[in-house]
Amino acid sequence: MSDAPIIILARPQLGENIGKAARAMLNFGLTELRLVAPRDGWPNPSAGPAAAGADIVLEQASVFETLAEATADINHVYATTVRKRGVTKAVLTPEAAANEIAHANGRSAILFGAERSGLEIDEVAMARSIITVPINPEFGSLNLAQAVILCAYEWSKHRDLKSPPKVELIPPAPQEELDGLISQLFGLLDGRNYFFPPERKGATQQTLRNLLTKPGWNSLEVRTFRGVLSAFKDRRPD
Amino acid sequence: MSDAPIIILARPQLGENIGKAARAMLNFGLTELRLVAPRDGWPNPSAGPAAAGADIVLEQASVFETLAEATADINHVYATTVRKRGVTKAVLTPEAAANEIAHANGRSAILFGAERSGLEIDEVAMARSIITVPINPEFGSLNLAQAVILCAYEWSKHRDLKSPPKVELIPPAPQEELDGLISQLFGLLDGRNYFFPPERKGATQQTLRNLLTKPGWNSLEVRTFRGVLSAFKDRRPD
Repeated sequence: MSDAPIIILARPQLGENIGKAARAMLNFGLTELRLVAPRDGWPNPSAGPAAAGADIVLEQASVFETLAEATADINHVYATTVRKRGVTKAVLTPEAAANEIAHANGRSAILFGAERSGLEIDEVAMARSIITVPINPEFGSLNLAQAVILCAYEWSKHRDLKSPPKVELIPPAPQEELDGLISQLFGLLDGRNYFFPPERKGATQQTLRNLLTKPGWNSLEVRTFRGVLSAFKDRRPD
Repeated sequence: MSDAPIIILARPQLGENIGKAARAMLNFGLTELRLVAPRDGWPNPSAGPAAAGADIVLEQASVFETLAEATADINHVYATTVRKRGVTKAVLTPEAAANEIAHANGRSAILFGAERSGLEIDEVAMARSIITVPINPEFGSLNLAQAVILCAYEWSKHRDLKSPPKVELIPPAPQEELDGLISQLFGLLDGRNYFFPPERKGATQQTLRNLLTKPGWNSLEVRTFRGVLSAFKDRRPD
């Protein structure tokens, strides 16, 4: 059995909802909570009462300024979203994702967006896969804690399972290493005037980020690829 | 596929919780709600706002004085409870119960007790089976709407509409296109004297081939990546 997934709330608004998410988590044995830029700061006095006793989750919660920092040490990042436009990643049910997470090599995290707006496109772009709860097409109205509880509940089904003999696969590199590679590529491409016209630069970078996130390269593979990129670095003429 | 289960709330206290239960139900396609002796009467003005748009469930809800009346036309009654004392009935997970309900002959209903106290022993006695959500033994704190949503969610997996609306994922590019990309990269790297020492060239190429095969890039992605590589092509000096 792999480690329990970390729950990451990106830009949560109300302390009450953070508390409810903590309660939902602990019901199914999840304890690691990360908050990215909580709107009203942290700690938040409204969180405790809503947690209904899940104080330990709140006390141990860690706060990050950016999603990149919050996912730096994560091997498998899942983004929960209902939006489908422009998606080029696998979309999983909570059940399928829980199955992957339970057998994953390395640490997993599940991202949830802000209460009203959900995850932004660039936040989703950081994830390897997307989790979407299959829902009534005529009435989709899951709140944050409900989305968290369904994911935690599905994960908890795997807790008693015996782990199958592990193949010694190297886990995907932590997000931080992937970011290093992506920055290197962007830097090189800048030097080559690849991003043209300039107003398309953001979208093109998004496409490339999706492309490079997809493989789930491990640290060795990331290093190899960075070696390839280095070969393209312009050298001073002799 | 059998009929959807009816949700029966026995002696619910707060209108707000009835509204939340309705919202939980409709998210997963359940619409039939029965209320047994709601404490504050019915309709209850606090229910609507908490239903967040699931008004149809509240409008169609029917009210009964006794649980016997509310279950009179039901073939399969399930009682949700965490209490085990004196139980001589099968105890099912929400998953197992949903499976039974989906294949049941006749109508099914799931009973939920009052917010604080849950179902009484004589209420549980009316059920054929018990549903208990497997929960963290050190922190069990599911509220009414959460218990409802987990049961509704499990049931919804048996509906045809269940799949997360399939994203039109483009299949991986045919091998030929991948080979084109790999050849392009090898050609560029030759020009950069990347393959050194020469006797390692075969093994290094193998590594790179593995790396580039892993993502399963589709045709668009292969084309994008080839565009990136083209940016690294050495141009004749002007």
